[in-house]
Amino acid sequence: MSDALVGGLDLGGTKLLGVVVDPVGSEPLLLEERLATPAGHELVGGALVELAGRLVERASQELGREVRAFGVGAPGLVDRAGVLRYGPNLPGVVDLDVVSLLGSQLGVAVTAENDATCAAWGEHERGASRGRNHSVMVTLGTGIGAGITVKGELLRGAHGFAGELGHMVVDPTGALCPCGRRGCWERYASGSGLGLLAREAANAGQAGQVVALAGGDPEDVRGEHVTEAALAGDPAALELLGGFGWWVALGLANIVNILDSEIVVVGGGLVAAGPLVMDPTRAAFGQLVLASDHRPEVPLVQAQLGEQAGAIGAALLAAART
Amino acid sequence: MSDALVGGLDLGGTKLLGVVVDPVGSEPLLLEERLATPAGHELVGGALVELAGRLVERASQELGREVRAFGVGAPGLVDRAGVLRYGPNLPGVVDLDVVSLLGSQLGVAVTAENDATCAAWGEHERGASRGRNHSVMVTLGTGIGAGITVKGELLRGAHGFAGELGHMVVDPTGALCPCGRRGCWERYASGSGLGLLAREAANAGQAGQVVALAGGDPEDVRGEHVTEAALAGDPAALELLGGFGWWVALGLANIVNILDSEIVVVGGGLVAAGPLVMDPTRAAFGQLVLASDHRPEVPLVQAQLGEQAGAIGAALLAAART
Repeated sequence: MSDALVGGLDLGGTKLLGVVVDPVGSEPLLLEERLATPAGHELVGGALVELAGRLVERASQELGREVRAFGVGAPGLVDRAGVLRYGPNLPGVVDLDVVSLLGSQLGVAVTAENDATCAAWGEHERGASRGRNHSVMVTLGTGIGAGITVKGELLRGAHGFAGELGHMVVDPTGALCPCGRRGCWERYASGSGLGLLAREAANAGQAGQVVALAGGDPEDVRGEHVTEAALAGDPAALELLGGFGWWVALGLANIVNILDSEIVVVGGGLVAAGPLVMDPTRAAFGQLVLASDHRPEVPLVQAQLGEQAGAIGAALLAAART
Repeated sequence: MSDALVGGLDLGGTKLLGVVVDPVGSEPLLLEERLATPAGHELVGGALVELAGRLVERASQELGREVRAFGVGAPGLVDRAGVLRYGPNLPGVVDLDVVSLLGSQLGVAVTAENDATCAAWGEHERGASRGRNHSVMVTLGTGIGAGITVKGELLRGAHGFAGELGHMVVDPTGALCPCGRRGCWERYASGSGLGLLAREAANAGQAGQVVALAGGDPEDVRGEHVTEAALAGDPAALELLGGFGWWVALGLANIVNILDSEIVVVGGGLVAAGPLVMDPTRAAFGQLVLASDHRPEVPLVQAQLGEQAGAIGAALLAAART
């Protein structure tokens, strides 16, 4: 089995993305498959089994190779036994034991981990933070996911729950978070956070072309309308992204002050806007890291593996652990 | 030298505390010495050498044993070579190369580390977090110091600067911090933070007996006047400590959400007030940790080694590294 492949499944709120990866070498992935995420505990489990089965079959038919293990990235708190304990973006899914389910259905070794942790591991092994022992990766999507490496290994914490950076409170009298607290970083530095900033600006008549792109109603403004307007050069949208970048940088600087990371990788849908988001974030980050004159610069870079990062990382974690 | 001892020096803004520790066994310390911290780069270096020399002599005369290595805890950013790069509480001290200085003067191996990191290591090895792999210790004094263990080892980070929790921004429009930013956790959850909270209450006429204890002028109120009044049962002081505990808990919960620690140790002068500070902190902490219903409880406990924690930890780090 030394030339066997490994599979990775990234369970998202809307889609399931599966890959097959060669644990040897540096190629990100060999095969890719997708499915829409169904609603409900049983159906989600069934879809994972189906997606993995397709990948095993394609690996055999197209590559003539076996898939010896699967890793699963799941959105929420995944405990060290691989059970998804808390996944607010998967309604109806409660204590999903991914490891037992896939293991019994596929007859291969299975591991599971938080999805953003997997993405961080993918970038660490095959992407932007390759070769960096102390790294942080944040995925800025609807919410914020994150993964941390320390001494070249994933930081999982006492129970496997490390890396919940999005719920770091950065403004205790600020916006209410679905988690029940106020001012979580995720309220500001995610796609929903950008939408919130933009709707506030729109209601104050300061959002330029953003409202028109949203169809005319300030309440319909979302984060993507801001990046779209900014790409078209709208000054108000650019200013909104400046403020957004400051919030992103605030949380990243907090993390670097705590962990003394040597690189910060930023991925997720919002980074598709590239320099429009990265430039203001970098500028603010340089000012917010403690004693930046007395320490080496911490590079803030874009992720390289795109939306496959989580599945690739899950596969490589399975390779390392089984 | 297998029965040789190790020494630890804790360089504080006002005093130097030195200990001699047996790296084998569980006794916290065998000898202790103190000096006032002098002002200026040269004098600080000289005082460290003098204190270490006294300890070596006493170990020889009183215990008949050799001191084979010294560890130094220093207040600020200490790099991996053991140079104090940035120490705002030691005016005039710039790039103090503790390792070379003590090494050349004493002829023994020397290591240096941030003082709060040393204290965390001391508690981890001989105190409240003994046997816990994933721990956080915060020292609440004039400012906030902290140290983190991951998988039973100190988290030093890429450059040795990890653990600067006090400068985690938790209120970006809040109180100005000497570091130049606003709303650092240290502005709220330290002795100076408690003083600030109390002066605000005093100026609003809501600080009960606290102002009288400070001599009658609200501007003279400091953190210790609050704990003193609270110990005497003053309701306004107790309420102030409740609010203070909430700020302490906010930062601790942020850290636990990031690191998934299995225990949090709180030390420093403010904890001398015991349950008056710990009880409200624990109550708020339980509510602020993410998804606390879905994870094992994280104990929040008082430090056990008192003001010697830093020197003991520095000594034990030297034992482990040399």
